[in-house]
Amino acid sequence: MALTPEQEAEIESARAHPRPTLRAVSEGMEAHLYRAHPVLDHGFIRVVDYMGDDSAIVQAARVSYGAGTKHVSNDEGLIRYLMRHWHSSPFEMCEVKLHVKLPVFVARQWIRHRTANVNEYSARYSVLDREFYIPAPENLAAQSKVNNQGRGETLAGEEAARVLEILKSDANRAYDNYEGMLGQAQPDGSPQQGLARELARMNLPANVYTQWYWKVDLHNLFHFLRLRADPHAQYEIRVYAEAIAACVKDWVPLAYAAFEDYRLGGATLSAKAVAVLKRRLAGETVDEAASGMSKGEWREFTALWG
Amino acid sequence: MALTPEQEAEIESARAHPRPTLRAVSEGMEAHLYRAHPVLDHGFIRVVDYMGDDSAIVQAARVSYGAGTKHVSNDEGLIRYLMRHWHSSPFEMCEVKLHVKLPVFVARQWIRHRTANVNEYSARYSVLDREFYIPAPENLAAQSKVNNQGRGETLAGEEAARVLEILKSDANRAYDNYEGMLGQAQPDGSPQQGLARELARMNLPANVYTQWYWKVDLHNLFHFLRLRADPHAQYEIRVYAEAIAACVKDWVPLAYAAFEDYRLGGATLSAKAVAVLKRRLAGETVDEAASGMSKGEWREFTALWG
Amino acid sequence: MALTPEQEAEIESARAHPRPTLRAVSEGMEAHLYRAHPVLDHGFIRVVDYMGDDSAIVQAARVSYGAGTKHVSNDEGLIRYLMRHWHSSPFEMCEVKLHVKLPVFVARQWIRHRTANVNEYSARYSVLDREFYIPAPENLAAQSKVNNQGRGETLAGEEAARVLEILKSDANRAYDNYEGMLGQAQPDGSPQQGLARELARMNLPANVYTQWYWKVDLHNLFHFLRLRADPHAQYEIRVYAEAIAACVKDWVPLAYAAFEDYRLGGATLSAKAVAVLKRRLAGETVDEAASGMSKGEWREFTALWG
Amino acid sequence: MALTPEQEAEIESARAHPRPTLRAVSEGMEAHLYRAHPVLDHGFIRVVDYMGDDSAIVQAARVSYGAGTKHVSNDEGLIRYLMRHWHSSPFEMCEVKLHVKLPVFVARQWIRHRTANVNEYSARYSVLDREFYIPAPENLAAQSKVNNQGRGETLAGEEAARVLEILKSDANRAYDNYEGMLGQAQPDGSPQQGLARELARMNLPANVYTQWYWKVDLHNLFHFLRLRADPHAQYEIRVYAEAIAACVKDWVPLAYAAFEDYRLGGATLSAKAVAVLKRRLAGETVDEAASGMSKGEWREFTALWG
Repeated sequence: MALTPEQEAEIESARAHPRPTLRAVSEGMEAHLYRAHPVLDHGFIRVVDYMGDDSAIVQAARVSYGAGTKHVSNDEGLIRYLMRHWHSSPFEMCEVKLHVKLPVFVARQWIRHRTANVNEYSARYSVLDREFYIPAPENLAAQSKVNNQGRGETLAGEEAARVLEILKSDANRAYDNYEGMLGQAQPDGSPQQGLARELARMNLPANVYTQWYWKVDLHNLFHFLRLRADPHAQYEIRVYAEAIAACVKDWVPLAYAAFEDYRLGGATLSAKAVAVLKRRLAGETVDEAASGMSKGEWREFTALWG
Repeated sequence: MALTPEQEAEIESARAHPRPTLRAVSEGMEAHLYRAHPVLDHGFIRVVDYMGDDSAIVQAARVSYGAGTKHVSNDEGLIRYLMRHWHSSPFEMCEVKLHVKLPVFVARQWIRHRTANVNEYSARYSVLDREFYIPAPENLAAQSKVNNQGRGETLAGEEAARVLEILKSDANRAYDNYEGMLGQAQPDGSPQQGLARELARMNLPANVYTQWYWKVDLHNLFHFLRLRADPHAQYEIRVYAEAIAACVKDWVPLAYAAFEDYRLGGATLSAKAVAVLKRRLAGETVDEAASGMSKGEWREFTALWG
Repeated sequence: MALTPEQEAEIESARAHPRPTLRAVSEGMEAHLYRAHPVLDHGFIRVVDYMGDDSAIVQAARVSYGAGTKHVSNDEGLIRYLMRHWHSSPFEMCEVKLHVKLPVFVARQWIRHRTANVNEYSARYSVLDREFYIPAPENLAAQSKVNNQGRGETLAGEEAARVLEILKSDANRAYDNYEGMLGQAQPDGSPQQGLARELARMNLPANVYTQWYWKVDLHNLFHFLRLRADPHAQYEIRVYAEAIAACVKDWVPLAYAAFEDYRLGGATLSAKAVAVLKRRLAGETVDEAASGMSKGEWREFTALWG
Repeated sequence: MALTPEQEAEIESARAHPRPTLRAVSEGMEAHLYRAHPVLDHGFIRVVDYMGDDSAIVQAARVSYGAGTKHVSNDEGLIRYLMRHWHSSPFEMCEVKLHVKLPVFVARQWIRHRTANVNEYSARYSVLDREFYIPAPENLAAQSKVNNQGRGETLAGEEAARVLEILKSDANRAYDNYEGMLGQAQPDGSPQQGLARELARMNLPANVYTQWYWKVDLHNLFHFLRLRADPHAQYEIRVYAEAIAACVKDWVPLAYAAFEDYRLGGATLSAKAVAVLKRRLAGETVDEAASGMSKGEWREFTALWG
């Protein structure tokens, strides 16, 4: 995404005038404020506001546990303790507000995370721009043969070219017709009335870009990141999650490090998996049949543990 | 929407075998169970399950208020009292699960109601059908000239024909290309791999049909109905809300009657509006300038009160 | 509530070091930050953090409605429009975090507002202080004879004295025994082990003070204030709501003014009430029998409209 | 808890009249409906209504994944797959409504689970009964010396007797005074007015019993059970969780079995823990220093893995 000079100027203007506040300030996050981090071909994420920092998490926890937290000597240790024991409410005490520009099919996945506040650009009120997500060639993947919701190899040569040509021409034709139905392409004084915007929009494909303000607390944001920054997430939402994660890391470095250790990099084991690992640690060789796991569980288990 | 004979048979089969239960039963709702109520050209709503009835609301309220509810002599009076005084939790004690088939742009409005549970058909896993919403000619409305999010007159003659032609041909071309990219139209052993479903879907316009299971409690359903069965709601979601409202009326007739009186048919007044009405009741003539209201408020006020 | 010198010093220290931020700043709210506003005999509310201001509401709305908002000429008009039409999401874009000290029976009412984040002092981990709410004599009210959940006249003379004596002595005895069971009153080297804190706390009455951090968005806070700053709310929670409302008024003055006009000072009418008012405006005299309302509805209706 | 003959009769009457329904029926849950399962000395849980069964979970998942679910051959495999991959929405399609009688201090922990619907008996409207939780001697535990929120050894002999005596006499005195302030103990025509119920209740300790209707979906119920049926949960809430779990097992046996395997009996590992286990599996001996874990993490890790 290339910002227009007007947008660049607006961002610089918003960043030009720091004001004094008595609130908690995260230097790392101040550096991100208002700046657009490009995602995909026309999208971005921008941090528009935030509340709290690492010490706000600690402060909230100490209200809860009172003297009970004194034995944890420092902030990092306490934050790691909270993350390890699934104490979610202290992380809810931080909040962030993002401005996101994203394709509609990504927005549809994203909105399934309900515990957040959203203001989306309304195509009932206003006209959408002619901007569509067209994948880069290296992201044009074939359907996976083993995973119903996954991707396989990258499409090559002619097939890739054909797909790109379809996506581009269908998007442009749809947009031409959208404009045509709205009547905005007829400035010649014709009697055309123009279809209502709330109807005309239905002609636009799911790769058209929309935008929204999305506000979420840190606990729910971590949940979002765990699912969407995961390798199994669809590439087009994963890159948004990764761009957000990079900001979160600068915002609350201690909490993010705990999240990386306990969630992103960790593993969840079933009772069966615990039993198999214990047998292996005791020197036993355990195969699929002896594990009691289904074929799918065993495949996932051995992918991690060999 | 016309059901296929297979679907009709499935519904009749699901309705053929009543089983005994000790739970609260609503005869009015049993008559709706599983049956598809057609909405728009290919959509429907179906009640798939429900919990509770009017007496469940009363029962929950009596737990809360104990002896305090005895002075309300009957169920109807108590339900009206609860509705009038915004006691929401007793209405939350009823729950309904719907199967809905609807265009994507309607689904996008609908999902903004967050306090509900949803399982939507996933176009990452599975292939969507060739079904698109094409408005009936009488619903092809022009953009309203006074209301940014509303409709004006119905499009006539050639313009209507042109719009319908666009919507149909764009939808079909998009679907042809969707299939083509998926590679399902090439059963000839060609080397084509087929684009991943999660990518190919982005070519489909917002009038393609999707479907979901949607589960919601009665309090939140009333909130949905108040906003979406309202004359200001977009026609295409309003008809869904109306079809659901007809089922709710049979399910919990006392609660629905109270909802109609206090919410659908009622009015909300600002402090300024209360003051104007009191002055009018005292015989005074109050015009816009003397009301203290903005132009928009005054227009809405006089639309109701003259 | 009188703060200890240590607490006063801590607050002044937190207020002593403004730092630069690029975020939206509300001067009105900065003046409140960290300061304790006394409520009841030992309670307080303190603003610990906030996000956004009036212009953040407007900004979020303009993202949603795009060019559609241009016809509303100014921020105040747009905020009033949003409030009038129940557009809740722009108000959700502001957030506030409070530190509250309050009696347990007030906390139990408060927590019923679920859309908020809470960290409460845990009496499993830590020992509660000897602080109990004892009503001022003018708040010692008799049970209302007409309202099951309301108060009647103030208790007088001997009865008031007797009640105060009971509340004080029961609270102190309960706390003495709480300490005794915890074993903290036996520093004489006795072999007593001390009951687990999570059990000992069960001896404490509902007027003991607890404290929590409570974080909520502005939309849900307005909902809380509408119910709890209402004359029908119990006095002991209403004074908290009023103290919070005073801060909100300084934080987002335009939004608060709209809230006062459309919610606090407004009225909700049923379809029946609309019909009666219209008949009255047309010169007709309508009595209870002709209104179609129940006794209770009629009483509430005439309380406002005469 | 011993039910009164009236209550027994009411339950039997509610169970006496099965009615036909077309909804999903769980035989296992029908056997529980309305019956009170005793918990603690005066508490109980009763299933009052439910929606859905194991096949409702499967049905919802198949709507989402369409043809994508066909490769999972049976219901059990699909339910295990959903649980393993944290697909929560199909489990949200089941709902249960419970009637629970419980001490106030347990209710205060319980209500922290926000995603549920509650109607609690209101002591503003009505008078509470003289029922208090008094622990059985074997549950009178000392404060743990190593765990700030845990229990240590059982109190013995004189100290136990002293604690029980305090709890009983304080509860009774508090209730006598509650009644006295309400004025219900003076039927002699005295001029006493009686303190408002909303005030008098503040004298009652946290072991007084309250009751509520609690309605929750299966996904959120599993979350509740994972935290509250856990050995680290306070005994007094754990016994409620266990009583509920026993009903859930009969209601949705396949989902419950998956929950037991993947949640209750499973384990969560941090990235550090995964690394240590891999080194151990490779034959290496890893001690605390080499693990990179904190003292607390290492203690928890070795508790499971040796």
